[in-house]
Amino acid sequence: MREVAVIGVGCTKFGEKWETSFRNLFVEAGALALEDANISGEHIDEIFVGNMSAGRFVEQEHIGALIADYAGLATINVPATRVEAACASGGLSFRQAYTAVASGMSDIVVAAGVEKMTDVGTDVTTDVLAAAADREWEGIAGITFPGLYAMIATQYMHRYGLTREQLAQVAVKNHDNGAKNPNAQFRKPITLDTVLNSTLVADPLRLFDCSPVTDGAAAVILAPLERAREFTDTPIKVLGAGQASSTIALHDRKDICTLDATVAAGNRAFQMAGVERKDIGFVEVHDCFTIAEICAIEDLGFCKKGEAGKLTEEGQTAIGGKIPVNPSGGLKACGHPVGATGVKQVYETVKQLRGDAKGRQIDTEIGMTHNVGGTGATVVCHIFGRV
Amino acid sequence: MREVAVIGVGCTKFGEKWETSFRNLFVEAGALALEDANISGEHIDEIFVGNMSAGRFVEQEHIGALIADYAGLATINVPATRVEAACASGGLSFRQAYTAVASGMSDIVVAAGVEKMTDVGTDVTTDVLAAAADREWEGIAGITFPGLYAMIATQYMHRYGLTREQLAQVAVKNHDNGAKNPNAQFRKPITLDTVLNSTLVADPLRLFDCSPVTDGAAAVILAPLERAREFTDTPIKVLGAGQASSTIALHDRKDICTLDATVAAGNRAFQMAGVERKDIGFVEVHDCFTIAEICAIEDLGFCKKGEAGKLTEEGQTAIGGKIPVNPSGGLKACGHPVGATGVKQVYETVKQLRGDAKGRQIDTEIGMTHNVGGTGATVVCHIFGRV
Repeated sequence: MREVAVIGVGCTKFGEKWETSFRNLFVEAGALALEDANISGEHIDEIFVGNMSAGRFVEQEHIGALIADYAGLATINVPATRVEAACASGGLSFRQAYTAVASGMSDIVVAAGVEKMTDVGTDVTTDVLAAAADREWEGIAGITFPGLYAMIATQYMHRYGLTREQLAQVAVKNHDNGAKNPNAQFRKPITLDTVLNSTLVADPLRLFDCSPVTDGAAAVILAPLERAREFTDTPIKVLGAGQASSTIALHDRKDICTLDATVAAGNRAFQMAGVERKDIGFVEVHDCFTIAEICAIEDLGFCKKGEAGKLTEEGQTAIGGKIPVNPSGGLKACGHPVGATGVKQVYETVKQLRGDAKGRQIDTEIGMTHNVGGTGATVVCHIFGRV
Repeated sequence: MREVAVIGVGCTKFGEKWETSFRNLFVEAGALALEDANISGEHIDEIFVGNMSAGRFVEQEHIGALIADYAGLATINVPATRVEAACASGGLSFRQAYTAVASGMSDIVVAAGVEKMTDVGTDVTTDVLAAAADREWEGIAGITFPGLYAMIATQYMHRYGLTREQLAQVAVKNHDNGAKNPNAQFRKPITLDTVLNSTLVADPLRLFDCSPVTDGAAAVILAPLERAREFTDTPIKVLGAGQASSTIALHDRKDICTLDATVAAGNRAFQMAGVERKDIGFVEVHDCFTIAEICAIEDLGFCKKGEAGKLTEEGQTAIGGKIPVNPSGGLKACGHPVGATGVKQVYETVKQLRGDAKGRQIDTEIGMTHNVGGTGATVVCHIFGRV
């Protein structure tokens, strides 16, 4: 396999983007990535795009070709492929782009992610997101995503003694980070009281435990490492890639407090990268709900099971802590356009490793991403390093 | 890039499968492929699945993980990715599987495709399929897929003098072939009169010019060529892969009678394979409508523009002719479960090259597949050979 580097990144502002269409969201992110890599579109050999459900959000499938067309690349007949794994679609888009470059199939490859979620009512959004879980055994019984993660949280708090305040601290920390990220949907710091007094969504999860509904797109450009310095002085190398699946339904798991796909995908990425947990300077994890960040920190091996709440409470997951988690603000504060999130994690990681993350900069050589589909039926992890 | 071979294939019967669920369709095809490759599931390193619109047909996304789970592979946390490019989803699934093996990322990889189309009414089906074209400029104006291909047919007949009878002969030939394929949805030979007297769908296209609405799944298993003989005495090598995109909307094409993405994808596959048109013993093309087969034969370079009608009329595209087209019966007679079709084309090609296509066998060393998304916004081609 050839060594692969990221040579350019772009990301739209995340939020409720009433003024922008699905197709224009991608074009904006793609143009930013091209500008960042200092190349023009005709150099692109292949495109991958992560998208969960444009079929229902904007009644459009065939997203790869649509996006290649609106990026002006139909004229060079660029191969364009959409990948989907619910909220892990963006991470998988990056993985396919990585494989395409590593294989030698293509040289300059775009990995993008896009979701336009606000063109439908919230009742439709809730139903669309339920399609990420098991429709026949979960959705059909009326359970929504907050409900599924509430079951995880309930069981976890009972078993490990996680306090309501520790859980809330995840949100407080991520809003602190998001306040320093110009692309974040929410840029206001919050307090523990904000979380604890917010509307109950699915007990014990409150409004500020949940990531929001968001429009947004992100795009990154990959190239063989040996060609990377043609385009940038600060290529960021892909050190490891790990993907794993688990049961689609929560009730089929051995233990709902551990996402076994996170354990497997993390181990695979670490093994490929040949680095240790202690080498990781920060990690962008999939905090669709506060409890999801708690589980992710443990399942990736950054502390023992049951200890992530204490770690968070002590400030060890904040910027400046032992293992900073979600310097971008995470899904919680940055927003969660489901197909785009996995690519935005790569965007943040590259910005950090280049030293370009103004106001939230972490000084490190190595960073990691962790993107989850559904309640953990798909997980994809990547580890990146400075060259 | 490593050399790659197909070591096992499986395909369900195609048709209106009221008795089978979406998830069980895949399991059936996957089990047949495993049996054919003489391996068990725990040897699988990665899964790709092509699916166009389970989000709307069965209200389920996150198809990769769902399928890995129902195939019993969640226990080994197998990476599982869905790819989508409308009716070319199956072909792209194969391409990603090929790239994964070629890169060294994975060894034993499943490429599958599945679509369950009959769980909704035909009004919904028509609307779902319109999402393969440009929703904002085509679907919104009320045009359906038969309408789009009818415009191609009208322009083509006007320009090249293609006769109604020549067009009908495509369907007659494909039903002849389908009658010999045990998996085909339609197994009855038809006459020119059957086509010419069938209901008008979108002038000049009649019912028997159109591929049907179908449920079905297909799966094939790939491995590095150097390991292929561990599993089979008749590995079939992937010689070339080509993918291309074009504009999503028909009105943006330079010429609607030529699918420029077919030209580009075909050329790329031929270039990679290092073979000539004359070396190809048969080709499985994307005949979603009879006119689509006419265009495909020409755009792939098997005859000059405007001559495919005559070629068909003379019987040169039938089994035993100069360039047999769609020995499986094609989409027309075999049926067209949109996400599965591209993988079924590979299934047929492998059966032919192994000498296992009883009753419709073509004696040749090299075969080709051609899978189209929408009206040609995505095209993917593969060329296969005996080892």
